[in-house]
Amino acid sequence: MSELELPEVETETQPETQLDRDDRLRPEFVRAVLDAVEDGDNAAARALVEPLHPADIADLFELTPQEDRAALARAVTDLLDGDVFAEMNDYVREDLIDALEPHQVADLASELDTDDAVAIIEDMDEDEQRAVLRALDPDDRAAIEEALSYPEESAGRLMQRELIAVPEHWTVGDAIDYLRGHEELTTDFWEIFVVDPAHKPIGTCQLSWMLRTPRGIAMADVMKREQTLIPVDMDQEEVALRFQKYALISAAVVDHGGRLVGMITVDDIVHIISEEAGEDTLRLAGAGDGDINEPIRLTVRTRFTWLVVNLGTAMVASSVVGLFQGTIASFALLAVLMPIVSGMGGNAGTQTLAVVVRALATNQLTSSNTKRMIVREFRIATANGIMLGTLIGLGTYVIFRNTDLSVVIAAAMLTNNITAGLSGVLVPITLDKFRIDPAVSSAVFVTTMTDTMGFFSFLGLASLWGLHG
Amino acid sequence: MSELELPEVETETQPETQLDRDDRLRPEFVRAVLDAVEDGDNAAARALVEPLHPADIADLFELTPQEDRAALARAVTDLLDGDVFAEMNDYVREDLIDALEPHQVADLASELDTDDAVAIIEDMDEDEQRAVLRALDPDDRAAIEEALSYPEESAGRLMQRELIAVPEHWTVGDAIDYLRGHEELTTDFWEIFVVDPAHKPIGTCQLSWMLRTPRGIAMADVMKREQTLIPVDMDQEEVALRFQKYALISAAVVDHGGRLVGMITVDDIVHIISEEAGEDTLRLAGAGDGDINEPIRLTVRTRFTWLVVNLGTAMVASSVVGLFQGTIASFALLAVLMPIVSGMGGNAGTQTLAVVVRALATNQLTSSNTKRMIVREFRIATANGIMLGTLIGLGTYVIFRNTDLSVVIAAAMLTNNITAGLSGVLVPITLDKFRIDPAVSSAVFVTTMTDTMGFFSFLGLASLWGLHG
Repeated sequence: MSELELPEVETETQPETQLDRDDRLRPEFVRAVLDAVEDGDNAAARALVEPLHPADIADLFELTPQEDRAALARAVTDLLDGDVFAEMNDYVREDLIDALEPHQVADLASELDTDDAVAIIEDMDEDEQRAVLRALDPDDRAAIEEALSYPEESAGRLMQRELIAVPEHWTVGDAIDYLRGHEELTTDFWEIFVVDPAHKPIGTCQLSWMLRTPRGIAMADVMKREQTLIPVDMDQEEVALRFQKYALISAAVVDHGGRLVGMITVDDIVHIISEEAGEDTLRLAGAGDGDINEPIRLTVRTRFTWLVVNLGTAMVASSVVGLFQGTIASFALLAVLMPIVSGMGGNAGTQTLAVVVRALATNQLTSSNTKRMIVREFRIATANGIMLGTLIGLGTYVIFRNTDLSVVIAAAMLTNNITAGLSGVLVPITLDKFRIDPAVSSAVFVTTMTDTMGFFSFLGLASLWGLHG
Repeated sequence: MSELELPEVETETQPETQLDRDDRLRPEFVRAVLDAVEDGDNAAARALVEPLHPADIADLFELTPQEDRAALARAVTDLLDGDVFAEMNDYVREDLIDALEPHQVADLASELDTDDAVAIIEDMDEDEQRAVLRALDPDDRAAIEEALSYPEESAGRLMQRELIAVPEHWTVGDAIDYLRGHEELTTDFWEIFVVDPAHKPIGTCQLSWMLRTPRGIAMADVMKREQTLIPVDMDQEEVALRFQKYALISAAVVDHGGRLVGMITVDDIVHIISEEAGEDTLRLAGAGDGDINEPIRLTVRTRFTWLVVNLGTAMVASSVVGLFQGTIASFALLAVLMPIVSGMGGNAGTQTLAVVVRALATNQLTSSNTKRMIVREFRIATANGIMLGTLIGLGTYVIFRNTDLSVVIAAAMLTNNITAGLSGVLVPITLDKFRIDPAVSSAVFVTTMTDTMGFFSFLGLASLWGLHG
């Protein structure tokens, strides 16, 4: 895994022309490759794909319809290296990997750093996993087996074992000589870790600091002692937040005894930050992980489950309407207006919910400012409720010339807006306190509240007021 | 801005004890600092704050109620350096900066790299901005003025001018000697850019490659020629996607002539990736930028605007119900059940919308796979529509023993689910084609469709079928 591979000098620069202005492969290009494959002209397909960056080759497979992927893979087999697989969507990769022999997967994995190799192997069935591990050389196998022993989505899975650690008594010159003299060391690293005799990290040194310092100076005088260490069992979301907060490029991963066991680099974290931040959008909507490459059966199942839960809550809200059937029968206009009250509450609740879920996810909302946040949302809800209530009350009066109806709908609108604001902030905070992901379950509670309260306040007030047509 | 500041050797490690397990400041700690400030014991407050990382000092200000921030700032003035301001939320920073004299702001800015200095200065009023610029030394002023000449949220604003560029005929040894011999060069960089005589970048060299290579080798033989260049006017969202796609740590920024004018590093991008991904959650919900430090008046205005737009669409949907007042008056049960049909359509539409918006934002959905995506969503909507329709039809039959009603609600549910799926995918794709942000405006169109079609299909079918109580 860790042989010295200095980059080859290549003459052409990146093939920008196959990409549109947003760095996406042009549809004509994708079409041309697939046409070549279909015509059996593998050489032409290969010639088109060869200049692409591994990330773009991965994209090409994702953009190819599932039924054509195997043929494409056969046409460009030798271009499908570990880097391409490391960049590929999980489902698309699994598809392709399933078609390979264990020793082929092992060859791919051995080109990669531990973290990328683990990403390829961790999703395989246990049998196949074992077959691949057997085909690896003992060092790689041991590294990957150890990584797999850590929980999924933990720092232990994300980290690579390939790193540079030096003792503190070394000088900058010693470290440079060591790097130049040992072919087997990794080529890609951004910081060097300085460790004590027990292999505990005592400082981190940016390579730029080393390069700016005379050879004779001790590493201990160049390194920074204040370092951010990552416990090996830390959840990847926490790791991502820590990288973000302290603007880290790489970080040492330590075991329970505080010993250096691996390194995480920011390029692996960038994907996680984007995924975790985007996940909230999908979770709030009940869309699972929203992967467009997921087999359709799984997608239907995830979404259906969520819809059934919502069907339950919709029925609860409906039963509130059921209580007022008599009122509605005598004054059908109430049925016309009631969805406005419940719907607007839903909109206001969703606004608050989105803000609170994001603030929780980014650690901006903590117990230090919870009370301030609740008061803030209450004030916003009241202000908007008064304005919206006035607006809808006036509108109702202008259209229907019914003062009682106008007052009732205005009051219901205010009530439901406050319900929306309070539930939008209290539900996610409460779920978070119990360590339940607020993005997943909040929306169900909040819409149940706003629907129920919307119908109840409007129809209830109308009924109390003795409204009739 | 670019003097050599090698990190000092400090003896303590990070004060983890003031942080909870999620790296957030403990509420007791925040309380203790604010109590000390309130008691006028600035020395105690300073002693507590001093060991904190700049990012944590910034957090402390964000967690402090607005009315207490000025007093806290006075207590710990000397700890408020440029790094703290660079990490701070825009609104909180603006608050504090407003209280400072131009020359104090200039002092802060001159400690920072261009990108961070620009971040502090760009939000100021034009008058104050000019005063600060006057107080800067000429080099810094020129750099910041040039940065401000680029559009907001462009690469030109994000980049720093402090970078290392060397000619291609240099050897590794030449480059190292240059770095050691020039105090004024920047200390923080991860890659060196190799440029031709016209200052156009021809290759990029990771520092680790230099450190692993003997002094005599030419830089041109160590660098990688395939490089990802960032045009100076590229939007920051595109820059972020490019960093993500190609796993970049730093990248050269070039002007229209292809000359190297700056460098962007991944630590500045990480914030943008997280913000942009999180923004979709907030935009879909119409919650503006969802900043919990925004003055409440601005928040109310943003949210109210969105609610009024939705009020309009809710009235359109209501008017559809209005068409069927007669039907409802004779059979009020229809009013009880109709919110279920519209609401479930809304839920299904939101699911599809969230997936499509995310896929567009992450460049996973492109013109190459648009058709596939539409077919996919249509199939999912049909499958879920059939299952939900059956479920609600059976449920209605069990509760109300009315076959006609059951058939009507099942058919309406299927119709509305397909409406939801199709509008959930077609609306954002269409908006994106016209370069309108689909996250901002899609939800209004989709809920209008699902509400309207929900009421229309259910009440319309009921009316056609001649349903009555």
